[in-house]
Amino acid sequence: MCATAPGKSAPADSWPSAGAGSGVSQLSARARAAPESGIVEVINHGWQRPGLIPLWAGEGDRSTPKFICEAAADALAAGETFYTLQRGIVTLRQGLSDYYRRQFAVERPIGDFTVTGSGMHAIKLAAEAVTAPGDELVYLTPAWPNLPAATAVSGAVPVPFPLIENDGGWQLDLNRLEQALTPKTRALFVNSPSNPTGWVATIDELAAVLDLCRRKNVWIIADEIYSRFFYGSERRAPSFLDVAAPSDRVIYVNSFSKNWAMTGWRVGWLVAPEDLGQVFENLVQYSNSGVPQFLQKGAIAAINDGDAFVDQQVAQAEEARSVFTEILRASERVRLRPPDGAFYAFFKIDGITDTRSAALDIVDRANVGLAAGTAFGPGGEQYLRACFLRRTDEVEEAARRIAAYAAAL
Amino acid sequence: MCATAPGKSAPADSWPSAGAGSGVSQLSARARAAPESGIVEVINHGWQRPGLIPLWAGEGDRSTPKFICEAAADALAAGETFYTLQRGIVTLRQGLSDYYRRQFAVERPIGDFTVTGSGMHAIKLAAEAVTAPGDELVYLTPAWPNLPAATAVSGAVPVPFPLIENDGGWQLDLNRLEQALTPKTRALFVNSPSNPTGWVATIDELAAVLDLCRRKNVWIIADEIYSRFFYGSERRAPSFLDVAAPSDRVIYVNSFSKNWAMTGWRVGWLVAPEDLGQVFENLVQYSNSGVPQFLQKGAIAAINDGDAFVDQQVAQAEEARSVFTEILRASERVRLRPPDGAFYAFFKIDGITDTRSAALDIVDRANVGLAAGTAFGPGGEQYLRACFLRRTDEVEEAARRIAAYAAAL
Repeated sequence: MCATAPGKSAPADSWPSAGAGSGVSQLSARARAAPESGIVEVINHGWQRPGLIPLWAGEGDRSTPKFICEAAADALAAGETFYTLQRGIVTLRQGLSDYYRRQFAVERPIGDFTVTGSGMHAIKLAAEAVTAPGDELVYLTPAWPNLPAATAVSGAVPVPFPLIENDGGWQLDLNRLEQALTPKTRALFVNSPSNPTGWVATIDELAAVLDLCRRKNVWIIADEIYSRFFYGSERRAPSFLDVAAPSDRVIYVNSFSKNWAMTGWRVGWLVAPEDLGQVFENLVQYSNSGVPQFLQKGAIAAINDGDAFVDQQVAQAEEARSVFTEILRASERVRLRPPDGAFYAFFKIDGITDTRSAALDIVDRANVGLAAGTAFGPGGEQYLRACFLRRTDEVEEAARRIAAYAAAL
Repeated sequence: MCATAPGKSAPADSWPSAGAGSGVSQLSARARAAPESGIVEVINHGWQRPGLIPLWAGEGDRSTPKFICEAAADALAAGETFYTLQRGIVTLRQGLSDYYRRQFAVERPIGDFTVTGSGMHAIKLAAEAVTAPGDELVYLTPAWPNLPAATAVSGAVPVPFPLIENDGGWQLDLNRLEQALTPKTRALFVNSPSNPTGWVATIDELAAVLDLCRRKNVWIIADEIYSRFFYGSERRAPSFLDVAAPSDRVIYVNSFSKNWAMTGWRVGWLVAPEDLGQVFENLVQYSNSGVPQFLQKGAIAAINDGDAFVDQQVAQAEEARSVFTEILRASERVRLRPPDGAFYAFFKIDGITDTRSAALDIVDRANVGLAAGTAFGPGGEQYLRACFLRRTDEVEEAARRIAAYAAAL
């Protein structure tokens, strides 16, 4: 299957002929249209290759800190293995409320928080909450492919809105965005800092987008998972939290995965106006029926005692970002601007137009794992993505291999 | 919100008026239509009440066995905290394949198995796989309310098909079922042994249903989560596995929750024809992006080394079933037939017509937690459900309290 994110949803299934086999053709159009992840395709190609430096996935090289693991293991040993509250246990939701006060200087009560089974799950619930089948959800591209794919599986129509590329940087055209939001648009998905581009919306842009969505009566789904990974003068990226009221139609989706090196835990959360609480409780009930309580105990340790670890992660990313950028910019054949946020380099290599083939070839010949830009939808096709949240020496070696590969083209 | 399962889906959202507030009215119809769980409503009413015997939820009183917890804790301590394979790690899928050979005498290769984030998640993926928005999914009632609710959230239309009640027992009318499957029907959901009724399909009924669905080109979603909890002469209930070929259009959904006392782990699986594997990989990717690897290590211990524990659970359930049944049948005011499978008593009390109010009242006056039949859709409204997978002395005491309550009406 192709590695790109889906566009418009496929036509409805026709009634299958009696006696047909079990195959894929008998499934729903939405299931058949869900693409294989273009990121995973390259990972499968290079899985467990000796000496390969894997920069393909969106995760760092550190396992979860011990104090977090021990909190979960202690709860498991204490027999906390029963069904638990659908929206998350109160101490975790209190910890999240405290975290928002500390990091974002906003007061959001416990009732605004719902614990989810990953950031992905938070996105899916948000999409189901605000779109009916056939409704449109506009999203900025290049984008993480799971967002449009999950939207399409839910029955809604993901509509890409490309950022404008300008000398390796990315810009949001607010006038064009206003035109792109039609009466069919129920939600705008904004991921800032952005995976894969590293684009970060300014506070003025966020205010303008909020104003636009208020006027057009469009929900905002704000994916600010990377807000702590910001390389500007502040400790974090600008956030819709800085400009929106708690009662605004903004649903924030987030995850423990990146900040606290918990990608393998599948715990996330969402923040929404308090009066939507019962609806999100129901959507949790009818999708995964809650998050394991003993995992939530680990998440409590992360949110309450993990600030210093996040700071270390960000410092590591910033150092690796410099090294990676410097080496590749010294190469004459690589076009790269250091990202303003997140932990990805999104770059072009002169002479490469088919990045999907190139990513597979770079595995084979440079022994570095990258993600192909084709995985990220309109506007990203000519790029390659490298995750640099990793030991500096490995990132440096990977950059040298990529530069050598580019030089030999 | 009402506690019953949803019927036909609500009408599509109209375009909201500009300037409206954030409230629930601005959400999608499908999100607003998702009902509060009628089971959870009673639990919330009686939560942490001193001395209450909780028979309301579908879980036993034993925490997860130590050998399972330790396998997960060991993996966590070993740093297995990264992203993992979307369909589950190979050793777990191999363990599942072995389990089916051992328990069901069928050969299903690894490629047929997908690990999911709960049985609920398996059901949601199966519904999305076989229905497009607007398609109908027929299910037997009384039923676990999450099935129709999840179907409706996914955009499809759940259509109840009531079993026929006969002196406290339940029967499937195959002729009427044939008529209920229309050209709009894409799937039939069969839960046998049934939660809440305890009904168990005979092998002949399963064969007839399979034949019917083959002729009508309708998928079967087989929820056989309770198959080991069977009180007939065999060690397990009849299964579609006994009559269907691996290539038949049957998707089996299952869970570690009940057999191995892992309700709080949120790990399940599904079995489907092997050629659907990539589709289920994609559906996992775009819903929760996989199950934590360290939880899967616990699940491996369960599936490989947990047969004896399951036997103990079944023996406990059988003993408690006898005690519970005996006491309540001695009461003149209770109508109860011992269930053929699962671990619920589904019974009527003379004079009670509003079971939702009665369940709340029984919490207050008898200090026993039950689920109201109104939670289980058409045909179950007059019943109360009690989960008896619990220490016999507690089940006995609960039965005495219910009998006393009934006698005092």
